[in-house]
Amino acid sequence: MYFEALDNLISELSTLPGIGKRSAMRIALFLARAEPFRTESLSRALLTLQEKIRFCDVCGSLAEDHLCTVCRDPRRNRDLLCVVEEPGDVLAIERTAEFSGLYHVLMGALSPLDGIGPEDLRLSELIERMGSGHFQEVFLATNPNLEGDATAHYVQQLLAPYQVRVTRLQHGIPTGSMLEFADSNTLAHSIRARHNL
Amino acid sequence: MYFEALDNLISELSTLPGIGKRSAMRIALFLARAEPFRTESLSRALLTLQEKIRFCDVCGSLAEDHLCTVCRDPRRNRDLLCVVEEPGDVLAIERTAEFSGLYHVLMGALSPLDGIGPEDLRLSELIERMGSGHFQEVFLATNPNLEGDATAHYVQQLLAPYQVRVTRLQHGIPTGSMLEFADSNTLAHSIRARHNL
Repeated sequence: MYFEALDNLISELSTLPGIGKRSAMRIALFLARAEPFRTESLSRALLTLQEKIRFCDVCGSLAEDHLCTVCRDPRRNRDLLCVVEEPGDVLAIERTAEFSGLYHVLMGALSPLDGIGPEDLRLSELIERMGSGHFQEVFLATNPNLEGDATAHYVQQLLAPYQVRVTRLQHGIPTGSMLEFADSNTLAHSIRARHNL
Repeated sequence: MYFEALDNLISELSTLPGIGKRSAMRIALFLARAEPFRTESLSRALLTLQEKIRFCDVCGSLAEDHLCTVCRDPRRNRDLLCVVEEPGDVLAIERTAEFSGLYHVLMGALSPLDGIGPEDLRLSELIERMGSGHFQEVFLATNPNLEGDATAHYVQQLLAPYQVRVTRLQHGIPTGSMLEFADSNTLAHSIRARHNL
């Protein structure tokens, strides 16, 4: 008993983060039994995402236009730049309402084992912004794990030529965990207690 | 910062089995960053599933036509009927190559708490097959949990008027596992059901 359509969907689902072969199969069988409109609306939501969501030309976070709402907002503090790994990290920090500056999304973290080097991150864009902007502080909010710490260290060295204060998230978040999953209170504390590097 | 397209996909993904709000968000952000062809091929796989996969008119398991490959196969033992909860269970049993009979998929199990009663299962179809077929044995392979056991018990009573042997999956310790890791209920059952060597 082999079903190409089922097998195909299982393979597609297995490539998503946190979904193994077993969960992919469970989801595929669930959808095979579900009302057609459910599969259609999921399918539509996927295509709409691709169509509607883009990345800010300046900071790289999620946007619905060339610039994101943060970069467009005249009330944001343009002396302060927060460097994060992923667009999801910007959403997490915005939820705390603790940060009033601008963002720079690296689109990943250094990870030699996964073949992710400095050239794969948005570092040249960062350097460009350092040249044109007038930042007083660059706050490194990469994840408090091995890759995030290595990335923060790398960015710190990259920023050495610039007259800028470099700060790092306070380790109030458990080491080895991910920013995206921290509760807002812990994350808020980490932002308030950020320290000089 | 609110993105309708993102939020919409997160809601859709959260309705899938085993996917909570957090994993849905992680997957949605992953897809927002992924190459467009990935989202498109996932979307296509979803629609193809709905288009290609249907359920066998007779047994209710996955099929690409009116009848599934098992029901169409003249080599299958038509004296023997295996009753399972879900189409996925048929795939699991077929993988063992231990069963040569036919199947009957109930499309669920009795679960009063979830509002699933006998009328929600393919029981009238089962009775119909009992009348027209000439089964010697009905093998109840519903899950070995509360709902599956209750369902097996219900089906057993339903089959009482028919001259048929009713059997049930043997509970026991999984092959290749270790005694010390087995849960007490399973171990207790394995001890009570011990057999001569």
